[in-house]
Amino acid sequence: MKSLEHRCSSPFHFVLISLLFASSTSSAQSAVTLDLMPLPAHVVMGAGQLPVNGSFSVELKGYTETRLVAAKERFLATLGRETGIPFGKDAQPDGATLTIQTVGASEAVQRLGEDESYKLEVTADHARLTAPNPLGVLHGLQTFLQLVRITPTGFAVPSVTIDDQPRFPWRGLMIDAGRHFMPIDVIERNLDGMEAVKMNVFHWHLSEDQGFRVESKLFPLLQEKGSNGLYYKQAQVRAVVQYAHDRAIRVVPEFDVPCHTTAWFAGYPDLASGKGPYEVETRWGVMDPAMDPTRESTYRFLDRFFGEMTALFPDAYFHIGGDECDGKEWNANPAIDAFKKAHGLKDNAALQSYFSARVQKLVAGHGKIMEGWDEVLQPDTPKDVVIQSWRGPTALAAAAKQGNRGLLSTGYYIDLNQSAAEHYLADPLAGDAASLTPDEKARILGGEATMWSEFVTPENVDSRIWPRTAAIAERLWSPQDVRDLTSMYLRLGVVSHKLQSYGLDHLSSTEPMLERMAGDPYPKALRILAAAVQPPVGYQRERLRHYDATSPLNRLIDAVPPESETAREFAEAVKAVVGGDALPGQRSEVRHWLVVWRANDARLEPGLAKSDLTAELAPVSQTLSQVASFGLEALDDLENHRTLDAGIAQRELEILKEAEKPQAVLLDMVVAPVESLVQAAAAK
Amino acid sequence: MKSLEHRCSSPFHFVLISLLFASSTSSAQSAVTLDLMPLPAHVVMGAGQLPVNGSFSVELKGYTETRLVAAKERFLATLGRETGIPFGKDAQPDGATLTIQTVGASEAVQRLGEDESYKLEVTADHARLTAPNPLGVLHGLQTFLQLVRITPTGFAVPSVTIDDQPRFPWRGLMIDAGRHFMPIDVIERNLDGMEAVKMNVFHWHLSEDQGFRVESKLFPLLQEKGSNGLYYKQAQVRAVVQYAHDRAIRVVPEFDVPCHTTAWFAGYPDLASGKGPYEVETRWGVMDPAMDPTRESTYRFLDRFFGEMTALFPDAYFHIGGDECDGKEWNANPAIDAFKKAHGLKDNAALQSYFSARVQKLVAGHGKIMEGWDEVLQPDTPKDVVIQSWRGPTALAAAAKQGNRGLLSTGYYIDLNQSAAEHYLADPLAGDAASLTPDEKARILGGEATMWSEFVTPENVDSRIWPRTAAIAERLWSPQDVRDLTSMYLRLGVVSHKLQSYGLDHLSSTEPMLERMAGDPYPKALRILAAAVQPPVGYQRERLRHYDATSPLNRLIDAVPPESETAREFAEAVKAVVGGDALPGQRSEVRHWLVVWRANDARLEPGLAKSDLTAELAPVSQTLSQVASFGLEALDDLENHRTLDAGIAQRELEILKEAEKPQAVLLDMVVAPVESLVQAAAAK
Repeated sequence: MKSLEHRCSSPFHFVLISLLFASSTSSAQSAVTLDLMPLPAHVVMGAGQLPVNGSFSVELKGYTETRLVAAKERFLATLGRETGIPFGKDAQPDGATLTIQTVGASEAVQRLGEDESYKLEVTADHARLTAPNPLGVLHGLQTFLQLVRITPTGFAVPSVTIDDQPRFPWRGLMIDAGRHFMPIDVIERNLDGMEAVKMNVFHWHLSEDQGFRVESKLFPLLQEKGSNGLYYKQAQVRAVVQYAHDRAIRVVPEFDVPCHTTAWFAGYPDLASGKGPYEVETRWGVMDPAMDPTRESTYRFLDRFFGEMTALFPDAYFHIGGDECDGKEWNANPAIDAFKKAHGLKDNAALQSYFSARVQKLVAGHGKIMEGWDEVLQPDTPKDVVIQSWRGPTALAAAAKQGNRGLLSTGYYIDLNQSAAEHYLADPLAGDAASLTPDEKARILGGEATMWSEFVTPENVDSRIWPRTAAIAERLWSPQDVRDLTSMYLRLGVVSHKLQSYGLDHLSSTEPMLERMAGDPYPKALRILAAAVQPPVGYQRERLRHYDATSPLNRLIDAVPPESETAREFAEAVKAVVGGDALPGQRSEVRHWLVVWRANDARLEPGLAKSDLTAELAPVSQTLSQVASFGLEALDDLENHRTLDAGIAQRELEILKEAEKPQAVLLDMVVAPVESLVQAAAAK
Repeated sequence: MKSLEHRCSSPFHFVLISLLFASSTSSAQSAVTLDLMPLPAHVVMGAGQLPVNGSFSVELKGYTETRLVAAKERFLATLGRETGIPFGKDAQPDGATLTIQTVGASEAVQRLGEDESYKLEVTADHARLTAPNPLGVLHGLQTFLQLVRITPTGFAVPSVTIDDQPRFPWRGLMIDAGRHFMPIDVIERNLDGMEAVKMNVFHWHLSEDQGFRVESKLFPLLQEKGSNGLYYKQAQVRAVVQYAHDRAIRVVPEFDVPCHTTAWFAGYPDLASGKGPYEVETRWGVMDPAMDPTRESTYRFLDRFFGEMTALFPDAYFHIGGDECDGKEWNANPAIDAFKKAHGLKDNAALQSYFSARVQKLVAGHGKIMEGWDEVLQPDTPKDVVIQSWRGPTALAAAAKQGNRGLLSTGYYIDLNQSAAEHYLADPLAGDAASLTPDEKARILGGEATMWSEFVTPENVDSRIWPRTAAIAERLWSPQDVRDLTSMYLRLGVVSHKLQSYGLDHLSSTEPMLERMAGDPYPKALRILAAAVQPPVGYQRERLRHYDATSPLNRLIDAVPPESETAREFAEAVKAVVGGDALPGQRSEVRHWLVVWRANDARLEPGLAKSDLTAELAPVSQTLSQVASFGLEALDDLENHRTLDAGIAQRELEILKEAEKPQAVLLDMVVAPVESLVQAAAAK
């Protein structure tokens, strides 16, 4: 579900800082020297390293299948991009070999909870990957790729023994292709990214008020009238399912009913509770249109449609949404009102419960297990129904107590521009779930990052998913006590850059967008501003400015990543300076940035008005320079052991408080650390 | 042809500077304020501008066909990437419209010399593109895309009337897929780039000693034994031909015979003049293996093979190579020697001439016109044979005098790391060709940029082709007197960044390679070094270090672009400082860079030894800092009106002379401008 109503936002930059610097203590982690993400369950370091040069080769032993042969070729291709070395397809007699020993087959259709374990042993002259089935092999190959590093003697993998398996069996990424269509190449490269961090469920959100995105041959008006021509052909869907299968990833489709269904009604208005006419929605938000749960024709339609779609998607699970019905169309329809009275359905929740129960039987009739958002859970919900929770750990724990399985998405809403740290610390077994019995805990299957797409296009979607989703992947794969933020951010930086070898655009998409909005091939000063700001967290954005499905997403807020690395590192250095434990270079780093920012407005301002897209940045740029000047004065005072005048500090802090507010829908991430500098200088 | 032997290299950085700064005079150019490349034949500026916002639309009138409908959709998609605005497929009633009026069809198979003209009129409320046929429409759409710019009121196109047609009918880019295979996505995105700058011939070099790259169904061992598994399926070839046709680009295949044919012999050794056995070659250079021109079986084979390939490639021209036969296999074969004597063929050139004449008849028998490199031209060569000249303007003019048509590639060898300026000033009608009669001049069809692929992979090939090929495209399209280098470089910078909207990687490929070789996600100091160096020009590289087809191309030389923008701008600023006509900011720019470079080695050096790929850069880095320190001292002297001591200057110039030499196969592009600073300081 994607709520614009049910959430409150948090003051992100304060949260960021407190998370980053309050809890650097951590449980023991044996593998902190390896830049792996997710960290394996068990690691023992050895001595020496295995060279990875042009004569490196891979050998398949034991059980084999087409997928493994393809995986070997993809592995060598990725290794080639990761190293710039061309690897031949055939084993070289003179080089190091990675031997892959697969015991047996995995299920034809990947099953929830299947064994995903592997063991990887690397010595100075050999590497061996063993796994009970191809799923573990695929995961182990990704571990190997992450272990490759450049050394004084060339690329190599350190000697190590890794015994690994996931903590949770359901580690998902949802992509909303309904609100903004995401072409196949976007889906495929994100499946590559998922494979790299061992995620195993691609949840494909395929229908929304704003678009119906898959071809139905039985009901072609669904896509013809329900989209702007942008939808997936069935052959493309089959190819994606195969592509995911090759990467040990299940594909769970979601067709959200009975609400979020305006696009269905554009072609099939008889499904709706209202009179229509219906058109594909272009506004964002919770919409009134809802399927009519009282007419048998609705269920006949859904039964045939589900029959078509369950044949297209082989996975055992089938997501029917079920979220965010506002009930307005139901209330306005006398026949529905009469139905409720006749069947003793006291309110719309009861009506939806009736609908969900009917739908569950249809889904079960096609041999599938139903999944839905929190709302579908009722006391009499069949125990096999899986609940995806956006309401949070309490709701998830309640489902588990009731005997249903569930997965967490609260905390993993990657569209909300929270920090990697915040996502990382959200745990499916935290909160109420921590006190569940072992049997109940076993019903918590894992979690899913959710990429809702009001504010993403194919151009910037990678930068919203990655690298933060890698932190979520670690939460879901690695042992629960792996939660050191410093280690996480260090490894995230490395893995983020390695993901470039998988074709993801998350690091390279910002610069062309800056050039475009500036109308300048070298927008140096704009780059500096861009590195200091972030989009606001939560649902602030749509409160600050009106957006709909036709809004261009081509401004600074759309170009910058959700989390500023520059600002995070600056804040870290400021904390060290204020705390008196700055490392060599941190003080000069703080000064360097403040000097750059103070000078930046003079360089940037004259050009901003040349572009309609950057004109609104004038106050943002001005604020950054002013904030930096406060920071520099405070730093001077601190370095010269002077105390900043209390009255001046007070006035500066008032101005800084004002500067915390969004301007041009952007947050200045330098403000909070500068506040701490001013406070420290005043407290001296 | 691709010679390692027949060329001499030039001292690139001197050439660069003399070209850049010696000839800033130029003929009148009416359109210098428009960032177009190639510049149109005729431009008249109007007043005002046409807004390009979300309600902009395109309307097709007059003659239409599938290609035009597809072109409209591609245009809107590119415009969408160029602006970040989503454009609907259907005309909006309330926005500006581009009306496309097409008079009639073009030839089913694009013909050399077909009318490519168009007229584009843009006013404040309307745009109209008219053309005799779809070729002109396709070109005009690219002009429109280049005209789009961000303004204070949003994206817009300035009011303008453009009447445009090409100077030459053959404007080609050759890509060598033989030495390093180039996957289909590389080919397609480069076709997109070609379309953007109105090039109209894709010359696909498909067979080499190092690889046979197209599927033959008649002779499958060609690709099976003649490649490492990397070749184009026939269905892929057909798709590329269609892709090119959709972009007004002809596809001319080249199958190079009788030499450069080792890969053929791996599967079909009976074709060869030697005893074999043959394997696909992995060395670079001119190889001995050659087809046996004395056996009828050779011609029977070629006839059947040409039959298959001429059916696959619809273009009227068929390139048979014909270059660089060293004759060693012919000399070593007594039967061939006997054949020469029996037929009065006095030498190997005569033997090849015999072969070329036979091959020409085969090609003609399949309804095609033969094209070949210089070597195929003999006194009795049929007049329709087209000569591609690597030998230069004299050879080209000789061909034209003899009645043959030809095109220039000398000067357009984009694998040789020459500057855009050098390529730009090479003209097909310069040198001997300038004094040809009008009829003879008409036989000079144009030219082709040649991307030989010893030193490129799919990862960095875009950066070798673009943006410099856009300058060559302008040479071949725009009027001959369009040759102002300052204007060219300004527009090239803009167009280069616009080409990102076409999916080309030329600007974004450097950074990941730097990160990879450094093993550091933020290789700041390496970036600074990288921006100051260039690969050596010409054939120096292979003389400085051994390379073959298995060599990884993952070092700094492979990551940096062939022409350093930083160094070029630095040199330009230094020239202004030395000349006493520096613009405001140029002097501080010079100082800024010298300070950065002087300090850089201290930051970079400690990390270089951590990577096998960067360890060799230590002297390069050290030299850059030393050179910069000389430059700073000289700059201080100049600014303080002091004269640099002649003895010191002498010693510094000796050291600088040494620093001109390649280190780690890289040229330091800062040396030459610093030499001029030192000379100026000493001359004060």
